[in-house]
Amino acid sequence: MADEPVFVAVVGFGYWGPNLVRNFARNPRARVTWICDLDPGRRRAAERDFPQARASASVDDMLRDAQVELVVIATPISTHFDLARRALEAGKHVLVEKPLTAEVAQAEALVDLARRVDRRLFVDHTYLFTPEVRYLRDLVARGDLGQLLYFDGVRINLGLFQTDHDVVWDLAPHDLSILLALAGRPPRSVVCVGSSHTASGLTDVAMLHLDFGDQLTANVHVNWLSPVKVRHVIVAGTRRMVLYNDLEATEKVRLYDRGIEVTDADAQRRAAVGYRLGDVLIPHIPAREALAVEVEEVVACLRDGATPTSPGELGVEVVRVLEALGRSLERRGERIDLD
Amino acid sequence: MADEPVFVAVVGFGYWGPNLVRNFARNPRARVTWICDLDPGRRRAAERDFPQARASASVDDMLRDAQVELVVIATPISTHFDLARRALEAGKHVLVEKPLTAEVAQAEALVDLARRVDRRLFVDHTYLFTPEVRYLRDLVARGDLGQLLYFDGVRINLGLFQTDHDVVWDLAPHDLSILLALAGRPPRSVVCVGSSHTASGLTDVAMLHLDFGDQLTANVHVNWLSPVKVRHVIVAGTRRMVLYNDLEATEKVRLYDRGIEVTDADAQRRAAVGYRLGDVLIPHIPAREALAVEVEEVVACLRDGATPTSPGELGVEVVRVLEALGRSLERRGERIDLD
Amino acid sequence: MADEPVFVAVVGFGYWGPNLVRNFARNPRARVTWICDLDPGRRRAAERDFPQARASASVDDMLRDAQVELVVIATPISTHFDLARRALEAGKHVLVEKPLTAEVAQAEALVDLARRVDRRLFVDHTYLFTPEVRYLRDLVARGDLGQLLYFDGVRINLGLFQTDHDVVWDLAPHDLSILLALAGRPPRSVVCVGSSHTASGLTDVAMLHLDFGDQLTANVHVNWLSPVKVRHVIVAGTRRMVLYNDLEATEKVRLYDRGIEVTDADAQRRAAVGYRLGDVLIPHIPAREALAVEVEEVVACLRDGATPTSPGELGVEVVRVLEALGRSLERRGERIDLD
Amino acid sequence: MADEPVFVAVVGFGYWGPNLVRNFARNPRARVTWICDLDPGRRRAAERDFPQARASASVDDMLRDAQVELVVIATPISTHFDLARRALEAGKHVLVEKPLTAEVAQAEALVDLARRVDRRLFVDHTYLFTPEVRYLRDLVARGDLGQLLYFDGVRINLGLFQTDHDVVWDLAPHDLSILLALAGRPPRSVVCVGSSHTASGLTDVAMLHLDFGDQLTANVHVNWLSPVKVRHVIVAGTRRMVLYNDLEATEKVRLYDRGIEVTDADAQRRAAVGYRLGDVLIPHIPAREALAVEVEEVVACLRDGATPTSPGELGVEVVRVLEALGRSLERRGERIDLD
Repeated sequence: MADEPVFVAVVGFGYWGPNLVRNFARNPRARVTWICDLDPGRRRAAERDFPQARASASVDDMLRDAQVELVVIATPISTHFDLARRALEAGKHVLVEKPLTAEVAQAEALVDLARRVDRRLFVDHTYLFTPEVRYLRDLVARGDLGQLLYFDGVRINLGLFQTDHDVVWDLAPHDLSILLALAGRPPRSVVCVGSSHTASGLTDVAMLHLDFGDQLTANVHVNWLSPVKVRHVIVAGTRRMVLYNDLEATEKVRLYDRGIEVTDADAQRRAAVGYRLGDVLIPHIPAREALAVEVEEVVACLRDGATPTSPGELGVEVVRVLEALGRSLERRGERIDLD
Repeated sequence: MADEPVFVAVVGFGYWGPNLVRNFARNPRARVTWICDLDPGRRRAAERDFPQARASASVDDMLRDAQVELVVIATPISTHFDLARRALEAGKHVLVEKPLTAEVAQAEALVDLARRVDRRLFVDHTYLFTPEVRYLRDLVARGDLGQLLYFDGVRINLGLFQTDHDVVWDLAPHDLSILLALAGRPPRSVVCVGSSHTASGLTDVAMLHLDFGDQLTANVHVNWLSPVKVRHVIVAGTRRMVLYNDLEATEKVRLYDRGIEVTDADAQRRAAVGYRLGDVLIPHIPAREALAVEVEEVVACLRDGATPTSPGELGVEVVRVLEALGRSLERRGERIDLD
Repeated sequence: MADEPVFVAVVGFGYWGPNLVRNFARNPRARVTWICDLDPGRRRAAERDFPQARASASVDDMLRDAQVELVVIATPISTHFDLARRALEAGKHVLVEKPLTAEVAQAEALVDLARRVDRRLFVDHTYLFTPEVRYLRDLVARGDLGQLLYFDGVRINLGLFQTDHDVVWDLAPHDLSILLALAGRPPRSVVCVGSSHTASGLTDVAMLHLDFGDQLTANVHVNWLSPVKVRHVIVAGTRRMVLYNDLEATEKVRLYDRGIEVTDADAQRRAAVGYRLGDVLIPHIPAREALAVEVEEVVACLRDGATPTSPGELGVEVVRVLEALGRSLERRGERIDLD
Repeated sequence: MADEPVFVAVVGFGYWGPNLVRNFARNPRARVTWICDLDPGRRRAAERDFPQARASASVDDMLRDAQVELVVIATPISTHFDLARRALEAGKHVLVEKPLTAEVAQAEALVDLARRVDRRLFVDHTYLFTPEVRYLRDLVARGDLGQLLYFDGVRINLGLFQTDHDVVWDLAPHDLSILLALAGRPPRSVVCVGSSHTASGLTDVAMLHLDFGDQLTANVHVNWLSPVKVRHVIVAGTRRMVLYNDLEATEKVRLYDRGIEVTDADAQRRAAVGYRLGDVLIPHIPAREALAVEVEEVVACLRDGATPTSPGELGVEVVRVLEALGRSLERRGERIDLD
């Protein structure tokens, strides 16, 4: 059994689906046998680039194929819940594109269902599989940054405008998955303010604030209307600070030997704070396509009993924060408690 | 009278004072005759670098010098009100380092006093005198950006920690002066969240949100704990967008021929939004030290009746927003109305 | 006939071959039916990624397949001549990886042979098909740069060390093809100096100087030992100057409205030269994979009688300059005339 | 005597002179008492900014002032020899702007004269006093880079056009002083090619090649016609490589843990060369104005008997290389031996 390839069906061959297909097709322990999409043009593209898989408009036909073991869902968010539910009920393992669902209740229902039918539910939070985020997690885990002070995320660009969800649901899941992984705990409360500039009324510029307690906060900027593209995450600790710039070709992570030094306050002055300026290290982190690592891990979970980095439970947490952010946004920045 | 030099006294020879002295000393229509500072070491430095001025510990002596026409105040914020009041009462014109005062009531009192004693009150919002901000103002005034959509400001670095005011009062006045100048109106409401990581309890990381009405909002990031220094202002309009990066040596302004195009929504789909990608123009803006321009203007106001770019009234507006931000910060992000 | 797909065989599936296969496979007017490589591992990779083509170790078998119309050669330089000759003799059109051959005489012989057998001979100087180089050619052709003053090329990185040719033959063909296309004429003389730092004795750092006459010169830096990767071409004219930085993600071309102004020298002083500083324009050049454009053109040459951008004759010119550079290098920088 | 300030006269108050005056004026062990310039406008500027010094048109008057101990020469190159000679003959120590003279014979004559009259002769090769070049020298001296492989210098910008010397004499002295300091020996031979694009006939774009023997070579690019300003020096060794980018605000030096590994060649293949990719370190090098360090050292040489970093002898070496480069340039790239 451990030697048999995992037969995979990918549902949705739009923007992200082809990347999923390509990576499963390249994995020696997997085989892509179905590509489902309602759009005929996309099915033709699938046939041209992946002649080894059957291109089909029917998810039902695919679900009836007993050989299919894993269903990968890369469709609009609003369809995630129904497709994932049907696939689990058909006895398939499921990997769902982020965010898991459009509501917390749905996400929790999927996790419950997967447990009941004893199938695996994975969420495709791809960033968790980049060599850089893995490097950051190791840094934090080893205590190399000292006590965490704050996160600062900037994820802005021009477009891509979505029609069924706003910029927060579109872009923030990346940062939220990274922050939850690094903080090791969910935020206690959130604040979100934003604005919309189109007739759709969908928020296209937003500022997120997450309070993790113990003075650890995160500020995240997401924006569909920025003339420049930025992909920054700063993780600041008392001992060191890191800048993760995903747009750099090879020097994505910079480790700053910088921090603050709080010297004892005397009676008169409340505090004497100095700051320490040291070297910058740009570690050589061998490049690897995150999706290839993720595919490898999904297969290892199914074949070797490995523990998933991004299970359904993490997907629930991300959706829970997204929902709270949405509520704060509606109330023009009111702080929403998550407990 | 128009030919006589303006005799200037500068109070405070710490971080910013020497720049003020140098620029007044270089202006052919001004003469620096007094430099006041309580610190003997700073007075010695003043004597060495500007032997033409008298270095003194006594503001009172200086104020009694009838020749002194303009008093320039570059001392800690908490001392601004009292020093400016005394100078005005002594019949001097006054230029005060930003922010004008630590409270709105004080700022308003100074403006009133200046009016009563018929003296000029200027606030040193230096950024308004940079060639780049002047270029931005012209762009907006000519309508070249279309309708303004949002501002995005990032002003982060490591240190300089202040002991008498937080990072919002330290860094945000720059952005606020620019935003007020570009928006042409004060914000209607503000939201501010932040955190402190030292025993002083002073906020060192903060996120500001200003709502100017008509869908125009501003998000500003200020931070004393960032390993990297960033000085960004994005001004986005429906027709064009601008990035003003103050850390670039010569290419500080980039004008993006980019925007969004909202096409008519059909019945089913709420909106079809496209985005337009065009050229980037980096205009050649001849460099000029902002403070030299400001000094020139201050002298021209006193001698030629010119209209000040940064009068006391603007200083009041900035302090009013700062106060509202502080209140929001205290209430952990509660929206504060300014009307 | 114009409707029939071009059946393509690709010889060599090492570093560059897979890109050629992928682009021919994606072209709707072409079909890749053979992939030849002596290495079994590469043949397995070819079978996995392109199941539609036959992977074979035998070029002879492939040449006997009458359906094959175009043979694409992506093997080591030393094998180009023999493979291209056999393919032409077998009645195939041929596209050869740059540089065309290892010697001018061989390159000329291939051009002659192609003419005799009435087949097309293309050289894969891929850079000529980038949107950026096309933009540069148009600029120069329209006279927008004024009279050309100089080229400055930097193509440096760490590795890839070759064992059968030096850094000049490895990297300079890119710049030479661009320079020949922009200058519109071959250089009159060349100078080349370099050094070797390995037991192989192959030059790994070199500096090239080409004199095109009429004060137009080119300096090109190639280097396998550079810690940083740089891909720069400056094209300077009397009216404007361009920087083409191929490592930028989207802003590869910068057009500088800068130049020199030579004012009339008076009797005493030999010359009064001023320089003009103007705006920088970063034109929006829609991205397109160069190889896809090249494949499209090759197919159009075979089907629609289009004129090739990079015919065998250009390949001969590039090899002629390479040979002269090699001779100068051997003689430690002696100037070599090309006439 | 060690406590007495060094009385300094600066001759030439054009581009560089004011920087020299400012740094001597700020040094607690020096006092600037004379500023000589033939231009009345410059003398007025000198009086305004440095009222403590006497501005004069007469070098003779200044040389007669017995109090003056050090004469600093910041005039056009062609005047260096005569002014320095007169100052030495008048018993003054002399610091001369780079390059020392316009001819080797003159430079040697000055060194001889200084020795005869027992005065110190310094050359203002300012770069040798930057914290970054000092860091590089230490790296090389400690063997941290391994065996040196090559230098690569790029010093290009638009203007400043000189009328009495070409771009090589204008810009290359900086690189030559650095290279000589790092190599620890003069080059054995040089090659220089360039071109001129103005009526003056002065070379404005040039490429320099220096061969130091033992496989160590340097390539340097100087250019007055470049639309972009670049200030790069790469120092590559077998163990590590350094990029010194003088235009970076704070991260001027990057130390690459990269190199080549030459593995033993077997009989068939001539060499197997691998390359090693490691971390990049950006050391924190506290900023310090080079000229302040240089002034400190000059004073220490006069007062404390310190050994100069940049004595007349180094100035002779730099002029010797410049002269050889000029000869090569005239002969269109002919290699010139320096032994």
